[in-house]
Amino acid sequence: MRRIKEKKTEVSNAVVKRLPRYYRYLTELIKQNKLRISSTELSKLMGVTASQIRQDLNCFGGFGQQGYGYNVTYLHGKISELLGTDEGYRAVIVGAGNLGRALASSRMFDKRGISCVALFDTDEKLIGTSFYGKPIYSIKALKEYCLENNVDIAVLTVPKDAAFEMASLLSQCVKGIWNFANTELNPEEFPVIVENIHIADSLMTLCYEIRNEHSEEEI
Amino acid sequence: MRRIKEKKTEVSNAVVKRLPRYYRYLTELIKQNKLRISSTELSKLMGVTASQIRQDLNCFGGFGQQGYGYNVTYLHGKISELLGTDEGYRAVIVGAGNLGRALASSRMFDKRGISCVALFDTDEKLIGTSFYGKPIYSIKALKEYCLENNVDIAVLTVPKDAAFEMASLLSQCVKGIWNFANTELNPEEFPVIVENIHIADSLMTLCYEIRNEHSEEEI
Repeated sequence: MRRIKEKKTEVSNAVVKRLPRYYRYLTELIKQNKLRISSTELSKLMGVTASQIRQDLNCFGGFGQQGYGYNVTYLHGKISELLGTDEGYRAVIVGAGNLGRALASSRMFDKRGISCVALFDTDEKLIGTSFYGKPIYSIKALKEYCLENNVDIAVLTVPKDAAFEMASLLSQCVKGIWNFANTELNPEEFPVIVENIHIADSLMTLCYEIRNEHSEEEI
Repeated sequence: MRRIKEKKTEVSNAVVKRLPRYYRYLTELIKQNKLRISSTELSKLMGVTASQIRQDLNCFGGFGQQGYGYNVTYLHGKISELLGTDEGYRAVIVGAGNLGRALASSRMFDKRGISCVALFDTDEKLIGTSFYGKPIYSIKALKEYCLENNVDIAVLTVPKDAAFEMASLLSQCVKGIWNFANTELNPEEFPVIVENIHIADSLMTLCYEIRNEHSEEEI
């Protein structure tokens, strides 16, 4: 128990944020039947330094061998494990609007070992129907459903104004909230894990780059 | 010209990535009629150190005054400008599937001064219809449309296998590609700005945190 606790505190947030990227590249390498890869090769592929790769993977006990590199399948397996893809997590989508439905129809969950089991909404026209084989239930049944069905993750796609109240409710019945509502939920205010995602931040970064590129040309 | 170029190279990628977050918080402060804020207050709100805030904003000429703090509206205006929200960018969505439609229906673009003007798809049933007031055209008309209508940004939501070819085409007619296709487009391979977004990376981070939290409890 002590060992895991120590390991957890050693790993910086920045490294954790990079793990999903390793996961994606290793998944691709497996598809290409690549058996092993050196930190140098992996660094070229991912556009980061080999030393960063070695440092990052060392945080988790370092799975490489000098002169051999990394065994792709083994490394992929270890990172999958760290990311909980073998935990059989169950997710629900709260809010069956355009975004909720887009997420429900994507293969993102399945591919990462997560079962997306149901959607919830307040719209009477949607309640009782299903989407991509997943039932849409009334939001009134959300808490009971999550507790009875051991739901781990709630994907929050409700309007901004409803986000806080809904997150408070979800804190009583899931382990983690993936927040797409266009507002920042302060993780410290909730007793469960909260991950905020702001899609538009990435759009703004693109706009910054376009503006910078073109303001040079035009002057 | 030289001055802009120098300014650009000084600003690290990490700072640029944080700008949209400043933008969001400042937008909220304006809504709350907050006129000025100290770096200490802003740091508490955003959960970063006051010194990081001062450093970040210094990169852009530092808009604060000792003893007064930052003028919220002025700072918001300056950051908006850096992020190109007053440039009147025009965007199209390539791929009118569930994700493309979710993006088309969101207010994300409008709120940031971007006009989302049309969607493009290969599905004959969709071509000629419209969605949230935006026409859906054949992908065959994409290049010509973008050139004729001065489109700046293409939002790519096509399937993974079509992403590279579509990005190559778009490189001839837009300034930037916002890539949602579940594959990493290497920005070096395209003559335009490419911003890859991987929504699922954030889901994986959430799973990592859930697993770590609960593996401690259970042992």
